[in-house]
Amino acid sequence: MGVTRTPRERWIEQGLQALAAGGPDAVRVEALAKELGVTKGGFYGSFADRDALLQAMLDTWERESTDEVIDRVEREGGDPKTRIQRAGVLTFSGDRLLPIDLAVRDWARRDEAVAERLRRVDNRRMALLRDMIGTFCPDADEVEARSLIAFCVAIGEHFLAADHADRTRAEVLVRAADLLLDRPTRTTAPSSEDRPGHRPGR
Amino acid sequence: MGVTRTPRERWIEQGLQALAAGGPDAVRVEALAKELGVTKGGFYGSFADRDALLQAMLDTWERESTDEVIDRVEREGGDPKTRIQRAGVLTFSGDRLLPIDLAVRDWARRDEAVAERLRRVDNRRMALLRDMIGTFCPDADEVEARSLIAFCVAIGEHFLAADHADRTRAEVLVRAADLLLDRPTRTTAPSSEDRPGHRPGR
Repeated sequence: MGVTRTPRERWIEQGLQALAAGGPDAVRVEALAKELGVTKGGFYGSFADRDALLQAMLDTWERESTDEVIDRVEREGGDPKTRIQRAGVLTFSGDRLLPIDLAVRDWARRDEAVAERLRRVDNRRMALLRDMIGTFCPDADEVEARSLIAFCVAIGEHFLAADHADRTRAEVLVRAADLLLDRPTRTTAPSSEDRPGHRPGR
Repeated sequence: MGVTRTPRERWIEQGLQALAAGGPDAVRVEALAKELGVTKGGFYGSFADRDALLQAMLDTWERESTDEVIDRVEREGGDPKTRIQRAGVLTFSGDRLLPIDLAVRDWARRDEAVAERLRRVDNRRMALLRDMIGTFCPDADEVEARSLIAFCVAIGEHFLAADHADRTRAEVLVRAADLLLDRPTRTTAPSSEDRPGHRPGR
């Protein structure tokens, strides 16, 4: 995202923030106008109606979650195991994409069109995982199982309230990634880059 | 649960159904009374107020999700790998506990007391996983990582929209369980008992 946004992009961004915070019902043109400090009338210069905004928001989320992540992972290089981990960090950590992703997942339970789009996004993510895990795992059934597990850990750990006694969640996630990616266990302290899908401050 | 319920139990059960379907805001005394076909006044014979109902609902969910699952798993016996799988099936499949569990998880994001209770429940589940995985895995760090992964798969797979080409989700989950539990891969078709945490019809 550029620093300077068009009015249309500002509505989309504010809409995504509202979605992340309160679900699709929180995406109300009047409330967004107030937050943006503009009049409600300006909205209709950029969008035909609220539904057009919702579509544009989903388009933005889909592009950022797939093409932009994949482009960046390819650009930054590294071996497949490093690239998997980077894709996970880009998608499921940080303050921006993760809360939108979880809100879209919740929305998809009640809206068939959103469910269809989520399926497309998740299928692209699974394809990426399969490709990378397939570089070191020769059994196609096992590649599929490891890809499913990796994806479930990236999402599921945000829903899990359990503690880990004298270990931090980040430490346990590093060991889980070692198992999934068939890596030798490391003994050094994990860096923040090693924390797949961990939201800061949780 | 017995077939015959006290009035108090009927309010709790109806409240849990409302929570599963629409979150805590959907738990409204008037709506529950209508669904139960009784007057709103009867509510106050069983509960001091709505908050008392919410507490009783959470008590019921906690007891069913922990003590009752653990009792049943112990009673039915089997080796640790069978018992883990049975605990997962009892907790995360079927129509009753899973939707309540996901609703409580969502609620916990906005309510500190619910978050505290969820932490207690998840910690008991993690303790069970650790005990059972510890029977065949000698490394404590790896036990923790495998327990986290197993729990994340049980929850996360319900949020995942990805397809698996010519495999069913159930087949991929069986292979994932084989990996997690360090079991030899099976070649026979999976029975429904082998589907950890899979909700029918999804």
